[in-house]
Amino acid sequence: MLTKIGLLGYGNVGAGVARLVKTEAQLLDDKLGWPLSLVKAVVRNLSANRGFASDPGVLTTDPHEVVGNPEIQVVCELMGGIEPARTLILEALSAGQHVVTANKALLATHGIEIFKKAAEANRDVMFEAAVAGAIPVIRTLKEGLTANRIQSLYGILNGTTNHIISRMSKDALTFQEALAESQAAGYAEADPSSDIDGLDAAHKLVLLSALAYGVLPRLEDIHVEGISLLEPVDFAFASEFGYVIKLLAISCLHDGHGPLEVRLHPAMIPSGHLLAGVNGVMNAIMIRGHASGDIFLSGPGAGMMPTASSVVGDIIEVARSHLSMASTLRPPLLGWRNLKAEAVMPMSEALLGYYLRFAVLDKPGVLSAISGVFGRHNISLAQVIQKGQDPRTGLVNLVMLTHRALERDLQAAVAEARKMETVGDTRLIRVEESL
Amino acid sequence: MLTKIGLLGYGNVGAGVARLVKTEAQLLDDKLGWPLSLVKAVVRNLSANRGFASDPGVLTTDPHEVVGNPEIQVVCELMGGIEPARTLILEALSAGQHVVTANKALLATHGIEIFKKAAEANRDVMFEAAVAGAIPVIRTLKEGLTANRIQSLYGILNGTTNHIISRMSKDALTFQEALAESQAAGYAEADPSSDIDGLDAAHKLVLLSALAYGVLPRLEDIHVEGISLLEPVDFAFASEFGYVIKLLAISCLHDGHGPLEVRLHPAMIPSGHLLAGVNGVMNAIMIRGHASGDIFLSGPGAGMMPTASSVVGDIIEVARSHLSMASTLRPPLLGWRNLKAEAVMPMSEALLGYYLRFAVLDKPGVLSAISGVFGRHNISLAQVIQKGQDPRTGLVNLVMLTHRALERDLQAAVAEARKMETVGDTRLIRVEESL
Repeated sequence: MLTKIGLLGYGNVGAGVARLVKTEAQLLDDKLGWPLSLVKAVVRNLSANRGFASDPGVLTTDPHEVVGNPEIQVVCELMGGIEPARTLILEALSAGQHVVTANKALLATHGIEIFKKAAEANRDVMFEAAVAGAIPVIRTLKEGLTANRIQSLYGILNGTTNHIISRMSKDALTFQEALAESQAAGYAEADPSSDIDGLDAAHKLVLLSALAYGVLPRLEDIHVEGISLLEPVDFAFASEFGYVIKLLAISCLHDGHGPLEVRLHPAMIPSGHLLAGVNGVMNAIMIRGHASGDIFLSGPGAGMMPTASSVVGDIIEVARSHLSMASTLRPPLLGWRNLKAEAVMPMSEALLGYYLRFAVLDKPGVLSAISGVFGRHNISLAQVIQKGQDPRTGLVNLVMLTHRALERDLQAAVAEARKMETVGDTRLIRVEESL
Repeated sequence: MLTKIGLLGYGNVGAGVARLVKTEAQLLDDKLGWPLSLVKAVVRNLSANRGFASDPGVLTTDPHEVVGNPEIQVVCELMGGIEPARTLILEALSAGQHVVTANKALLATHGIEIFKKAAEANRDVMFEAAVAGAIPVIRTLKEGLTANRIQSLYGILNGTTNHIISRMSKDALTFQEALAESQAAGYAEADPSSDIDGLDAAHKLVLLSALAYGVLPRLEDIHVEGISLLEPVDFAFASEFGYVIKLLAISCLHDGHGPLEVRLHPAMIPSGHLLAGVNGVMNAIMIRGHASGDIFLSGPGAGMMPTASSVVGDIIEVARSHLSMASTLRPPLLGWRNLKAEAVMPMSEALLGYYLRFAVLDKPGVLSAISGVFGRHNISLAQVIQKGQDPRTGLVNLVMLTHRALERDLQAAVAEARKMETVGDTRLIRVEESL
């Protein structure tokens, strides 16, 4: 058993897919039960520089070495744009190939034609990578929340605009300053209009709405408003009102009937909301299901490897389906063929920061004695605060934050400090800096 | 084609599953392509009061009307506990039935035996509902992030303790006060030890670690520490350091080798982190994949309908697999058999709050004239701020927040205000209060 893949397009994401399939071959084989093989990748120019070198003989300029090639079961369309992507996908489906694509513009404008063809051909069209990069939002809407009537979707679906907005919000930059910075950092393109005018996010909103409500909104019906009119003063006022500003993609159903409300525009949202904490190039989606309640997803919305992560996830899923046509149960995907119990690292070897609180007698020499104990155990202190005398006991809180230390050393030091006559009640809470 | 389901246990979650299968029958049929039918539900006491009335003849006290019943393809185990759940699940798998379960304690302690039996029997054991309620974290680890080497997991996996901690943090309650409040609200049980000592979250951490790393940690090896020693003063100090305290479930792999680090204890985390914003009974998980980057998921971690949402999602998935054994492509789950383009609600009918900023001449009567315009268009103002004179133009910012109003009325009022001689530059940003 072997699943053979062909790529249409070998740019950033294509090279990421090639890298994952090659460097994680063992991992993927373990999970699926058989290997994946990238056999052909279609490029416009054989000599261009790639992000990941392909095996000899893989690159070709002829798309029909992939599309319609009976050796290849899965066609990954990563070239973008409407044509020739549309025609090639339709041809691949007609030829009995499954399709994985990251092409949101194509699906948002020609989705009906493509999904109809897929249904006729009894083949899959998978597109997790088309919306929100590595975030598994397509899978969540299709599978995890299948049993729900979806009531609303709120999304931050474009990383470039969210980066610009985050910079305007944090450092009071003007739109032009933040855009220039974002271009210099490689997030915004030289012609940034598809991002900043909201079109890219609107394509994604159309796809999410179709998955959520089973209705494909027409792009031209949607109110789409970009971010170029935002000014620093608006961010300042938003903050006074307890809001932050985000470019928000919104769709909702009113009481389950009437037309769908779909719109995309800058919006003020309460600063305590999870969506308000999504900054920089991150994407996020909040989905309200009638049974599930509010499900919030966030993560990298773009980039070579995050997008490739979703493309390869889809390839694996298609590979399972394609086996299922051979009348066997799909592989379990758990890599648990030989699951066995294993010991974990002893807690004593954990390397962590610590918050320590000692109730101590408020007298000279106590701090020096305790910090001496920690020094002898190779624990270095980041901060020390002493305050808050308890009127009943006369004890004060001596609070210390440590740099990273071995749990074993820390416990030894705490045990030693606890034995001191000047030290009473003690508390230890670990600090997770590496989150 | 019909998929028949049997329930073991008809408590809160069981009744939620029965309700979803019955009230959303059309939705589920549309997605799957054929109906689900709940044919039997095993209860201990036929006359006990249920959250959702079953059809006549469905309730039974004999588990073998479900387990081993050749009519029933999918057995949902929702009784909890180790026995008889373990024996019944093993029997169901041996009899060729698929299993959906929410039983984290059973899988964390007897998972190897159960998954081995499932592999032998070529049947599925699905358990999305066993971890983090409606959040599709099992599916995300199994499928969405399949192509990743998982580097770390950080989770808030117990809603009761997170509710207690949130109350202690927000209102400086003691642990005992917050626990009592949580019990009165129905979140914490009369005997809350499994939650507050961390055992419930540890079971979930074992399952997530197994999915992420393909290794089942032994529960007894894991450092598990509950929340009962936390005091208000620690929350106050945490805040001074820029941290919040959470009961955190953690597992990580060091450079892909060496034993797994797995631990569960109260931890301080930076207050700006998304996990820090997860309050009340919510759950959340941050998964770091080598390709995907950090993927963050949050939502309701428990409750009748959120848990039922995950159980029914798994039933649908099993129903698709079980069809796949009949040598046909799995149904696409999109409900897109008749996908067509549809108009969305016109933007003019949106009912929203608005932030409006007018650059106005700083002279008497301007505010009254503008607010008069809004009054005539039935728009009620929630707040008005006037400040920030521009030294070049002499204009001041008049900022207004409206209550919810029709976009059509709002645009008409803004257009009228813009025509006033005293009004210059104008900005409008919508406010999403219903997030």
